[in-house]
Amino acid sequence: MAKIKKILIANRGEIALRIMRTAHEMGIKTVAVYSEADRNALHVRYADEAVCIGPPPSSQSYLDVNKIIETCKRLKVDAIHPGYGFLSENAAFAKTVTDNNIIFIGPSPEAIETMGSKLAAKAAVAKYDVPLVPGIEKAIDDVNEAKEIAKEIGYPILIKASAGGGGKGMRIVEGEKDFEEQMNRAISEAKSAFGDGSVFIEKFVTSPKHIEFQILGDQHGNIVHLFERECSIQRRHQKVIEEAPSSCLTPEVREAMGKAAVGVAKACDYYGAGTVEFIVDDKLNFYFLEMNTRLQVEHPVTEEITGIDLVKEQIKIAEGEKLPFNQEDLSFNGHAIELRVYAEDPANNFLPDIGKLITYRRPEGPGVRVDDGFEEGMDIPIYYDPMIAKLTVYADTRQKAITRALRAIEEYEISGIETTLDFCRYVLQHESFTSGKFDTKFVDHFFSPDKLKQESTEEENKIAAVLAAHVLNNQSEKKEKQEIERSVSKWKQRARK
Amino acid sequence: MAKIKKILIANRGEIALRIMRTAHEMGIKTVAVYSEADRNALHVRYADEAVCIGPPPSSQSYLDVNKIIETCKRLKVDAIHPGYGFLSENAAFAKTVTDNNIIFIGPSPEAIETMGSKLAAKAAVAKYDVPLVPGIEKAIDDVNEAKEIAKEIGYPILIKASAGGGGKGMRIVEGEKDFEEQMNRAISEAKSAFGDGSVFIEKFVTSPKHIEFQILGDQHGNIVHLFERECSIQRRHQKVIEEAPSSCLTPEVREAMGKAAVGVAKACDYYGAGTVEFIVDDKLNFYFLEMNTRLQVEHPVTEEITGIDLVKEQIKIAEGEKLPFNQEDLSFNGHAIELRVYAEDPANNFLPDIGKLITYRRPEGPGVRVDDGFEEGMDIPIYYDPMIAKLTVYADTRQKAITRALRAIEEYEISGIETTLDFCRYVLQHESFTSGKFDTKFVDHFFSPDKLKQESTEEENKIAAVLAAHVLNNQSEKKEKQEIERSVSKWKQRARK
Repeated sequence: MAKIKKILIANRGEIALRIMRTAHEMGIKTVAVYSEADRNALHVRYADEAVCIGPPPSSQSYLDVNKIIETCKRLKVDAIHPGYGFLSENAAFAKTVTDNNIIFIGPSPEAIETMGSKLAAKAAVAKYDVPLVPGIEKAIDDVNEAKEIAKEIGYPILIKASAGGGGKGMRIVEGEKDFEEQMNRAISEAKSAFGDGSVFIEKFVTSPKHIEFQILGDQHGNIVHLFERECSIQRRHQKVIEEAPSSCLTPEVREAMGKAAVGVAKACDYYGAGTVEFIVDDKLNFYFLEMNTRLQVEHPVTEEITGIDLVKEQIKIAEGEKLPFNQEDLSFNGHAIELRVYAEDPANNFLPDIGKLITYRRPEGPGVRVDDGFEEGMDIPIYYDPMIAKLTVYADTRQKAITRALRAIEEYEISGIETTLDFCRYVLQHESFTSGKFDTKFVDHFFSPDKLKQESTEEENKIAAVLAAHVLNNQSEKKEKQEIERSVSKWKQRARK
Repeated sequence: MAKIKKILIANRGEIALRIMRTAHEMGIKTVAVYSEADRNALHVRYADEAVCIGPPPSSQSYLDVNKIIETCKRLKVDAIHPGYGFLSENAAFAKTVTDNNIIFIGPSPEAIETMGSKLAAKAAVAKYDVPLVPGIEKAIDDVNEAKEIAKEIGYPILIKASAGGGGKGMRIVEGEKDFEEQMNRAISEAKSAFGDGSVFIEKFVTSPKHIEFQILGDQHGNIVHLFERECSIQRRHQKVIEEAPSSCLTPEVREAMGKAAVGVAKACDYYGAGTVEFIVDDKLNFYFLEMNTRLQVEHPVTEEITGIDLVKEQIKIAEGEKLPFNQEDLSFNGHAIELRVYAEDPANNFLPDIGKLITYRRPEGPGVRVDDGFEEGMDIPIYYDPMIAKLTVYADTRQKAITRALRAIEEYEISGIETTLDFCRYVLQHESFTSGKFDTKFVDHFFSPDKLKQESTEEENKIAAVLAAHVLNNQSEKKEKQEIERSVSKWKQRARK
């Protein structure tokens, strides 16, 4: 069994720090690589050794396989942890690493490759009991044949152009009586848009939730799941709020989904940490979407409810150790919610809002965990994903976790840039979220920039009230002065827009 | 049932913030009081309202009952949370608060009074099955009578002057053959020191551990315990490191101690959060020491392993709610360790080291909780307890919690003052601690300032090595420059002494 002594983290930001923290706890030395734009980044400061590998375009630094391998050899690195994003799901990179006698902390190149292709993944899981979204793989242009298939699948169904994209030639059909008309429209739309009138037919999942299962497998064929994460709150098809457990699953559905998730992992002889994503409808029917063959951004919520350090398990698996638990040993307690703090303006279509972190004070206290890669005074580089931090809260119930998250948002002081925190507060207070009845369409259904503007007016009212109180009663003057300053600065910030 | 809408926190520092965080999560407004020395303190900034109540000597501010009551009335405060220290165990204060129709978030004045007196507490618990350190209450001067009593109690026994203090006239007797000689010496020593030769005899507890049980009781007679905290690592009879659960208790002893702790609470019709302290010998015999009738500094370790917010339970109890759980509902998971970060110099007999927090960067990431009341650039006031922060770590096993604590210590960057963090690191790495075989004599047995000086030399060696590496290989120059700067600054800091 290979004992790892030094790990190079082929990544940046919060996830690089996250990995180094566990490595540090395991007595393993860490090597950071960084681009010229990240010279002052925290991951550089935290590592035992740090090497600049090039200019900011990722292709010339964080994606430069040769420079990374060369750095490993020069600094006698035993293993590479790819984090998420960048090279983490690149089968060729995993193979190059292994070919150079460096341990890749992740699955086999074959598993990455299989799960990286929708068709290969579907074929692989076919012999396991993994439900897929019902539909047909082959293109079809005969209305009667299509109607037969639609009947078999069951309405509502989705007709989509086989050459399609961008919603063109896409039709949702609620029942058989509309089928022929909608099919013909879809075909003609597809013809005029793509010059090809053939279409696919699949089940339309109503009120879809995105629920994923955390997988851990060792190199000896043992695979377990660590329960689910509910990730339906998204903007631009990207997750913003994740929680564990999901508030909608019954123990029976959880067990069935867990079994299916383990089936997916078995189908590609998976080892390491991975995530099996499902789409779940409002009747708790679930369908396999895809498998992410790496550590997930939202892994902390699983760590909070299980007490298991996922990075540590990844490293031990890469060393060849057996999993220290069976499925029966595993359970979860309490409730965790992760809020992604992006440098984005929710009032402006979530466009990145890059700049300097003029104020940056993290929340603290019971049940609050922050993973980030920045501190006050630092610039958010324009070259990378604009995530500043992940704020994870834990409490014994979902309701308490929500109030804790709201408290932590209030405590988080960030100025200089807009963030998704205001949006997160809006979601956490929305009846659809608190009742657990939300789906991936939350933003479409319930959010618009004016939802935040209302709050801005409240802020203005608050300033007026505080000023009035200040005039009337001068006794807690210091506190109020601070309050006024803070409110005015917030208000100015909003007024700028 | 009285719904509390506004709480005044009659305290400062981390515990004031801690209480405000929970109040905030419960939608309760908070009022901070502060002394002139605390104008810029975080608890002032965090509160919804803040009132300066006088100059720093505590008698003129934090202990000034009239000013506190007057502030409550002016700001229409419903309840006072006293925190720990200051007025928290002052029965007269609790009574004054109640007499002014303000809710006291704590036990009844009677319970505070009973448990505040050793004799009254012993008398109260007599009818419950609570083991006390065997001994006799009455002074004795007859050697033969004393020998009989010693035999009954069982050796080793402790003879101590009834008028005594400071170890004068104190003798540990291992067996009957030494008894007469030691007794006579104790008597003559006591005579010459205090003019009174009468002595007490009690069981001498060998290798004593300090283990305490967290109690919660409601105003309807329901009392539960939330398991134990092991608090044996002390300096100057004050706790520095606490953990939960204790590594030495068996489930049977835990149950028996828990039952005794509930008995103590019942003996004074206790409600609110309280702590029953025991002394435990190396054979796991346990004896009741005293009950602290307030929230304990080290309460976070209990929160971490049970998931229960103790401040929230305190507030709900004060509102008249029933406990939401029975003893059978309660369990714990994992392991938590709290390190107290004091502005003290462990290399200089733990003398306070007051000054400015020139650098102050908190550790972060999985399983790390910080409760503090300071931030970078602030001064530690000389007027108060020099505790800067409590660093609490959580993991699924004790071993992992220890490595996590060590990682968090490395991550904590504090300059400008000395802290107990170096001492904590020394303890966490000591075989006596890791094996769980330590007792309250740890510092006497295993610690001396030179234990930290060794590390200082290692630091110097590290600088030399880094400088050498720097000359030989210029490639990761930035990182090394930072490393050198940091090491040199650490080294300079140590050299100053």
